[in-house]
Amino acid sequence: MSASELEAKLSELLAVAWTENNTIRMLDQRELPAKMTYIECKNVEDVHQAIFDMTIRGAPAIGAAGAYGMALAAVNTASACGDNMAEFVEKLAATKKYLDSARPTAVNLEWATGRIMELVQLLHTRTNPTKLAELILREAKEVADQDREINRRLGDYGAKIVPNKANILHHCNTGALATIGRGTALGVIYTAFEQGKDVHVWVDETRPRLQGAKLTTFELMHAGVPLHLIPDNAAGLLMYQGKVDLIVFGADRVAANGDVANKVGTMKVAICGKEMGVPVYACVPTPTIDLNIASGRDIVIEERSPEEVVVVGSTRLAPEGCPVFNPAFDVTPAKYLTGIITEEGICYPPFEKSLAEAKARAEARTREAWERTLKELSAEVSQEGSKQ
Amino acid sequence: MSASELEAKLSELLAVAWTENNTIRMLDQRELPAKMTYIECKNVEDVHQAIFDMTIRGAPAIGAAGAYGMALAAVNTASACGDNMAEFVEKLAATKKYLDSARPTAVNLEWATGRIMELVQLLHTRTNPTKLAELILREAKEVADQDREINRRLGDYGAKIVPNKANILHHCNTGALATIGRGTALGVIYTAFEQGKDVHVWVDETRPRLQGAKLTTFELMHAGVPLHLIPDNAAGLLMYQGKVDLIVFGADRVAANGDVANKVGTMKVAICGKEMGVPVYACVPTPTIDLNIASGRDIVIEERSPEEVVVVGSTRLAPEGCPVFNPAFDVTPAKYLTGIITEEGICYPPFEKSLAEAKARAEARTREAWERTLKELSAEVSQEGSKQ
Repeated sequence: MSASELEAKLSELLAVAWTENNTIRMLDQRELPAKMTYIECKNVEDVHQAIFDMTIRGAPAIGAAGAYGMALAAVNTASACGDNMAEFVEKLAATKKYLDSARPTAVNLEWATGRIMELVQLLHTRTNPTKLAELILREAKEVADQDREINRRLGDYGAKIVPNKANILHHCNTGALATIGRGTALGVIYTAFEQGKDVHVWVDETRPRLQGAKLTTFELMHAGVPLHLIPDNAAGLLMYQGKVDLIVFGADRVAANGDVANKVGTMKVAICGKEMGVPVYACVPTPTIDLNIASGRDIVIEERSPEEVVVVGSTRLAPEGCPVFNPAFDVTPAKYLTGIITEEGICYPPFEKSLAEAKARAEARTREAWERTLKELSAEVSQEGSKQ
Repeated sequence: MSASELEAKLSELLAVAWTENNTIRMLDQRELPAKMTYIECKNVEDVHQAIFDMTIRGAPAIGAAGAYGMALAAVNTASACGDNMAEFVEKLAATKKYLDSARPTAVNLEWATGRIMELVQLLHTRTNPTKLAELILREAKEVADQDREINRRLGDYGAKIVPNKANILHHCNTGALATIGRGTALGVIYTAFEQGKDVHVWVDETRPRLQGAKLTTFELMHAGVPLHLIPDNAAGLLMYQGKVDLIVFGADRVAANGDVANKVGTMKVAICGKEMGVPVYACVPTPTIDLNIASGRDIVIEERSPEEVVVVGSTRLAPEGCPVFNPAFDVTPAKYLTGIITEEGICYPPFEKSLAEAKARAEARTREAWERTLKELSAEVSQEGSKQ
């Protein structure tokens, strides 16, 4: 498959996009893998609902939806506000609160809507609502583009450690459906595949929510990457039989020492990989690295609803009243990782050093880009002002 | 809970029993955990069907069902055969073949029906069909009693290594529903509980067939043993948090070197247990130890239907046409086991020696018992003959 063919396939999986009609199109992930349907958000209420009911999921995808949601509010209210900038800013501030409330634990959502508000704060005294709405939309697209770019860079670095003829074990969903680009761990696989490497993926079904069975299978099949779905329990046997060459997964959060919090089950896979001599890599955009957390022991583990474990579809699996423990994620101690792949290169032990360095490089780059953006927008606003 | 109370609770879970009406009663395990219903087998066809459609499951339980099935055939045809012993023997031989065909891979089934035929071969020239049917029924009950006795002995040995206030991780179903007694790994837990130890069980749901979620939860709740159901993926986190004191599971087959083939997923749990310093025990009746298999590498791994992975109840999880790998079991290398608990004591490394010794003790005991049985039955037959 050529690079452009793969890109075309992956773009069909785009979780969220701005349309020419000034609406937001989302792939309805609740319907996957049975069918590919899209919804069109015409107002902020639609966006809130889509985030709330998990039409869209995956931290970076939710972030982009939040930024586009702010843009939608701006575009829809700008003309009604006329020259009343105070009213416009107030409406946007209210929209941010409203959108953030759709998924309070999603850090990316708050971050993305906050980034738009930062722009508003900087420019609102120097332009009119219509112009500011235009700049907000441009910035929302930039949020999405940056995620695409991070995925691309991470994929390029990661593909280097994928051998040809590799059987790759993957946990959860980390691909096009969870991000705006090709994904993190799945992005590494897509990039290796695009480079013509002969790869095959063992897809962990990822109980209890089955993101592997439902979403990862779907997107790999859509992109034409060879795969087999497995029960999570089968991963050990495959390693024992020498049928796993590489293990990759994403992360919810990475501590300064390299301990990785990720979807529950990651830890068992990583420990078995290490024990069986299979290289184990976490694939992590640097914003996920939290240098303020010293080790995985400091990460609080969120528990999720027992229903996720005892009910599948309309079938109840366990007896009524059965007590359940259902942690959302687990913590893989850094010693079980071969490396951590980021958009700033691959970090190897000692992770304290390599993660801090990658994080510093990324922050310098991001800060520079953000300052350039603000400067450009400021200049554009000033120019507009002088023309009037 | 007193010993007799627990015994009463467990006897309600008895998978198969001979009734006073000369029928076979089975707990319908297909209906669990939703409801406890029983079926009554009045003829050999009913027994065949129940084994075939998994109304009854678990190797020892199927063995007992086979022995009782032979007894049912004997009791039902003896009077019709009158003094025609040749016809009676022929009918029993045909019944054995028919019953064995209900689950060709179940070694216990063939073994149990074979044991009845051995008795028939020994005695058929020396008695009449009615008397032989009586002896066959007595022997079928003996098959069940022996399994109960093996469980009891294994449980007594195993309970010694269960600390008080133990959090015990258990994989699959190995209890009253799978055997005729209290089970193997679950038997160890029941015995410790009965002795007044404060135990709590983490029940692995055991994907893909969910025997843990459906059956182990059900029988522990029925017996009043404290538990939490967990997704298999949560086991690593619990060990990391220091919340697992002991890991126990059963076995499909044990090689001479101590490698254990058991329900898929066992290996991941055992490797993590070893790595995290949690004691790991396989609980295994000695007939499951196969000294003719040198190591786990020589065990062929059976693959099961993809449907088990992609469909739960009426819900399809993965896309149509998704390739699946679904192995029935995996192999845990002996080096990850702390010990192997048998009805002849606990075997520790080097397993080559300890397993061979346990096996020899068990075989001597079994042979002695079987010879005593045959002698008693022979004597009884001779006495009957001399009375006539």
